[in-house]
Amino acid sequence: MEIKARIGILGSGKGSNMFALAEACHQGVIRAEIAQVVSDVENAGILDRAKDFDIPATYLSPGAFRTKLDEDAELNYIRLFREAKVDWIVLAGFMRILKGDFLKAFPNRVINIHPSLLPSFPGLEAWKQALEYGVKYTGCTVHFVDQGIDTGAIILQETVPVMDDDTPQRLHARIQDAEHHLYPAAVGLAVEGRLEVRGRLCSKAAI
Amino acid sequence: MEIKARIGILGSGKGSNMFALAEACHQGVIRAEIAQVVSDVENAGILDRAKDFDIPATYLSPGAFRTKLDEDAELNYIRLFREAKVDWIVLAGFMRILKGDFLKAFPNRVINIHPSLLPSFPGLEAWKQALEYGVKYTGCTVHFVDQGIDTGAIILQETVPVMDDDTPQRLHARIQDAEHHLYPAAVGLAVEGRLEVRGRLCSKAAI
Repeated sequence: MEIKARIGILGSGKGSNMFALAEACHQGVIRAEIAQVVSDVENAGILDRAKDFDIPATYLSPGAFRTKLDEDAELNYIRLFREAKVDWIVLAGFMRILKGDFLKAFPNRVINIHPSLLPSFPGLEAWKQALEYGVKYTGCTVHFVDQGIDTGAIILQETVPVMDDDTPQRLHARIQDAEHHLYPAAVGLAVEGRLEVRGRLCSKAAI
Repeated sequence: MEIKARIGILGSGKGSNMFALAEACHQGVIRAEIAQVVSDVENAGILDRAKDFDIPATYLSPGAFRTKLDEDAELNYIRLFREAKVDWIVLAGFMRILKGDFLKAFPNRVINIHPSLLPSFPGLEAWKQALEYGVKYTGCTVHFVDQGIDTGAIILQETVPVMDDDTPQRLHARIQDAEHHLYPAAVGLAVEGRLEVRGRLCSKAAI
């Protein structure tokens, strides 16, 4: 029997991307299983949704800081994912910056999705930034996580039009729709070893 | 008879966007005529191509600087376009920065096209910047010119995919194809007064 890749997911919110990834694993679109979900928010929806799929789901205290994990917390996060024997870490609405030790524990194995066409609009509420700038297209970007803020090598992107009468809510919803099929596609390529990364360039490997 | 808007064009190169705009004016897609083409490069192709359309085409010395017009030159450029009674200034591969006096002479009437999805990759050789960053989509942006570098209110954008095996030349050619229909569409909206600009947001006016 084929040995499937094991994915660990980190999230702080409702978990709609986790849901899309879990469905894609369930349907065999992603040849992997989600082995562990961890949240830094005690009552985050993502934990409940993970349990709906019978995925182990755990709250782990992030420690004293608001935008990162403290040193002890980071070790706890690393330990739990190692115990779960995950090959890949996928961020699904995780609202803290991951620092060097976590990234060193899973080198080139941490993936994130960002709600803009990077390098435009890194950081928080990218859909609001796009609306305020007045762009006609924004989108979403799946990328490897490096030490910067939303700066790692890009795996896949998808474009989303901005309408003249958009509200932040409507635009955000349109981007999230795109995320829910872009993220499974990108994670599927990664877990099957079908990505070739050279420096900051990531392309699909020839099969 | 309908009085047509008059367009002045500034360019430094071959003039492929000027050609697309002249064709669109000729076919009535843009309800305007190109009244004057000016180049800062004495033997620029754009001057010859303008003459093919019987458009007055003039080289005007840019003065001593390499990246902007000097003070006297700027006054000459303003004077010539005023004599030609142009309502709009359209930049078509003009490789110098326009400073305050020129923009004040034609307030909110200077339009540029840039070969990226701004705000990503402002400045020179945007297609190379996109390729080196590793984005999966780039494009082109028509925008009003303000004091910044490629920062003015966006009129229209179009997306262009980046292929894994792209060269700078191939990607640039693909973007230019998109430019040649995006630019006439945007200039057409402008000259017909169909754009509503509020702060840095530009939308299509209700008809």
